[in-house]
Amino acid sequence: MCAASVLESLGLTKTRIEALSDGVFATLMTVLVLGLDISTRTEPTIFQQISAISGHILVYGLSFLVLGVYWVGHHNMFHYIKRTTRGFLWVNILFLMSVGIIPFSTTVYGPHIGDAQAIVFYGSNMIAASLFLYLIWWYSTRYRELTEKNLDPHLVSSVDRRILTGPVIFLIGIGLAFVFPLSSFILFISAIIYFILPGHIDIHFTRTDHSHKDDES
Amino acid sequence: MCAASVLESLGLTKTRIEALSDGVFATLMTVLVLGLDISTRTEPTIFQQISAISGHILVYGLSFLVLGVYWVGHHNMFHYIKRTTRGFLWVNILFLMSVGIIPFSTTVYGPHIGDAQAIVFYGSNMIAASLFLYLIWWYSTRYRELTEKNLDPHLVSSVDRRILTGPVIFLIGIGLAFVFPLSSFILFISAIIYFILPGHIDIHFTRTDHSHKDDES
Amino acid sequence: MCAASVLESLGLTKTRIEALSDGVFATLMTVLVLGLDISTRTEPTIFQQISAISGHILVYGLSFLVLGVYWVGHHNMFHYIKRTTRGFLWVNILFLMSVGIIPFSTTVYGPHIGDAQAIVFYGSNMIAASLFLYLIWWYSTRYRELTEKNLDPHLVSSVDRRILTGPVIFLIGIGLAFVFPLSSFILFISAIIYFILPGHIDIHFTRTDHSHKDDES
Amino acid sequence: MCAASVLESLGLTKTRIEALSDGVFATLMTVLVLGLDISTRTEPTIFQQISAISGHILVYGLSFLVLGVYWVGHHNMFHYIKRTTRGFLWVNILFLMSVGIIPFSTTVYGPHIGDAQAIVFYGSNMIAASLFLYLIWWYSTRYRELTEKNLDPHLVSSVDRRILTGPVIFLIGIGLAFVFPLSSFILFISAIIYFILPGHIDIHFTRTDHSHKDDES
Repeated sequence: MCAASVLESLGLTKTRIEALSDGVFATLMTVLVLGLDISTRTEPTIFQQISAISGHILVYGLSFLVLGVYWVGHHNMFHYIKRTTRGFLWVNILFLMSVGIIPFSTTVYGPHIGDAQAIVFYGSNMIAASLFLYLIWWYSTRYRELTEKNLDPHLVSSVDRRILTGPVIFLIGIGLAFVFPLSSFILFISAIIYFILPGHIDIHFTRTDHSHKDDES
Repeated sequence: MCAASVLESLGLTKTRIEALSDGVFATLMTVLVLGLDISTRTEPTIFQQISAISGHILVYGLSFLVLGVYWVGHHNMFHYIKRTTRGFLWVNILFLMSVGIIPFSTTVYGPHIGDAQAIVFYGSNMIAASLFLYLIWWYSTRYRELTEKNLDPHLVSSVDRRILTGPVIFLIGIGLAFVFPLSSFILFISAIIYFILPGHIDIHFTRTDHSHKDDES
Repeated sequence: MCAASVLESLGLTKTRIEALSDGVFATLMTVLVLGLDISTRTEPTIFQQISAISGHILVYGLSFLVLGVYWVGHHNMFHYIKRTTRGFLWVNILFLMSVGIIPFSTTVYGPHIGDAQAIVFYGSNMIAASLFLYLIWWYSTRYRELTEKNLDPHLVSSVDRRILTGPVIFLIGIGLAFVFPLSSFILFISAIIYFILPGHIDIHFTRTDHSHKDDES
Repeated sequence: MCAASVLESLGLTKTRIEALSDGVFATLMTVLVLGLDISTRTEPTIFQQISAISGHILVYGLSFLVLGVYWVGHHNMFHYIKRTTRGFLWVNILFLMSVGIIPFSTTVYGPHIGDAQAIVFYGSNMIAASLFLYLIWWYSTRYRELTEKNLDPHLVSSVDRRILTGPVIFLIGIGLAFVFPLSSFILFISAIIYFILPGHIDIHFTRTDHSHKDDES
């Protein structure tokens, strides 16, 4: 159907890369929970032990939703990508690597939710993952033409803005860490809610979807 | 074939969400086993060490079957769901998050099978997961019309009852924890057996299936 | 094509069960490695530390191959299964549960390769998994007719014999544990090699395959 | 379409083996991160704790990319493979087993990046994985004819050379370990970059791809 890319002829189609990515995300979401542990706690009751790691449980929730946001973002992108190259493949693996370190960042941040350095580390991980996600988008839409030809330039810049909002919020969160650490957590959660709520891209698509229906009629 | 949803045009089809969910469930089922550990036990023989964690092994079995029940329930639901929205996607991720914490609840409950607080924590996790599963169903059938149009209202209410039976049993189990903790485990296992056995939904389907065969003849 | 089963109308097709099973096997094969650990060893050099856990590394290899054998056996079976029922689904989940405990058995057996009790535990896990695999086969071919109709009875009994050879060998291995523990390991490895080598089933299929070619000509 | 192999008739198609392999690779890439841990560090600040395990973080990155290289190599190979046999299946499982031990090698090498013995162990793991990957290729192209018939002999020898370059570099890295340990890490990273960059195989394919386009015109 679509023009076969060089890489597809190598046997590495979009489907393959998506399968690996889905597997990595599913495992990451699960592996997060392994950081939660009360077996070495010395508090007398279970409730006190759990309450002692409540910060870590909150960060578990944050990281799970963060992985959800990256997964959604990654797949939305792949919707437009029609062809792949070796370079594209490796940009994806670098993105997965940066996302793959999130369980570690979670075990750094979780038990030290009020520690500025832990926030810097966690926030930096988020910024790195966002920038690699942006790199995938930039690579596909501008460096190499891997998307469909008639891609709306407003969509491209709308996705640009949406992805790059992340690093900005996380940078502010890192800055706040040195003033009032807990506000960073609140900001990170706010960032996630911003990404969960429908954005311009959805509106764009609803419109596209309607116009498609017009075409059909 | 089916009317394409807004989200499908975003590249996030039902298939995708199912792939992520299957991956999360498969990994969760496997990761449960990592809570079992005799390496730090001091009993003189292997049998004594294993017998010392027999409560944990029982809870491993319980959690594995619980995950089986949620997986079956989740998929049964997805059979009826024809379209997806961004909100639906996130309700699913919240469900996966509540299920994703089960390995932790297992390591809390496992070594403390007679501790009321551990039972409260484990039971609350089950209730949360059940309510999120119900939320998926409610969202798809009533809040947004994501299912096929001619969905039997008896089926909808039958699934309602089946899902909401879970939280009720788990609530009773939590209550019993303060009287006779081991009875909670017995009740939890009974709840699982109830869900494993065929219910009204199967009967509904067998009937539907027969009527289909009538149509064919 | 094939007559749709009751369960397929519930949305739980063979494909789904296979996807979950593949995910569980892939994760199990990977999770095995987490049992290997030299971080708490006190030997002066890396080589001495690794050599101190060489028994565990051997058992890692054994368990990996064992999982391979069960995976191959499970899939071979699924080739013949055309329909599913709720009961079939749960027999599968029980099989996955018994296989899912293998990483734990590995951490029990690995560091105690010469301990009779560890061998009994590991061998019992293998026997349980084999019997559940047999249960899937028995359930599909005799209790419920889930396979294709014209299934060769010689094939059915050939698969029977092949699966049930496992428990017999593992029982002997358990018996030998009390005489000369290391011979159990050698026997377990031999059992795996027996299952890796082509058996009557392959010969059966090669014949079937040839006859197919005859049909085509 | 293609001539059905004996094994395909056993229900173990190429797709299945790929699904298991993808699952193993996705889980391995994720499980690597579990080796990173600062919870037992005694340095006063988070940054000092993270900096204390910086060697391990570097080796995490190396192992992630190494897994990426093996995954890409494995899939490129599978593009040519049209049929499977029982032997082929087990050669693959042996390859997965050798790759599956990489997270352990990473926890051996990571905290001891300057230890010659750790480098020997890590390098040997890489060599073993490369040789098993080569075994898959040799088995498919020469021992059994599992590839498409008109496979370019230049391609076969080009893939040969590309795979066997790995063990040679890793052998040199092992040798350097006894002289200047850190140079081994630099060499390993260089090897990965060599495999990430496009090689003769890509050029071969670009040419093939062009000729295909000629055919179409």
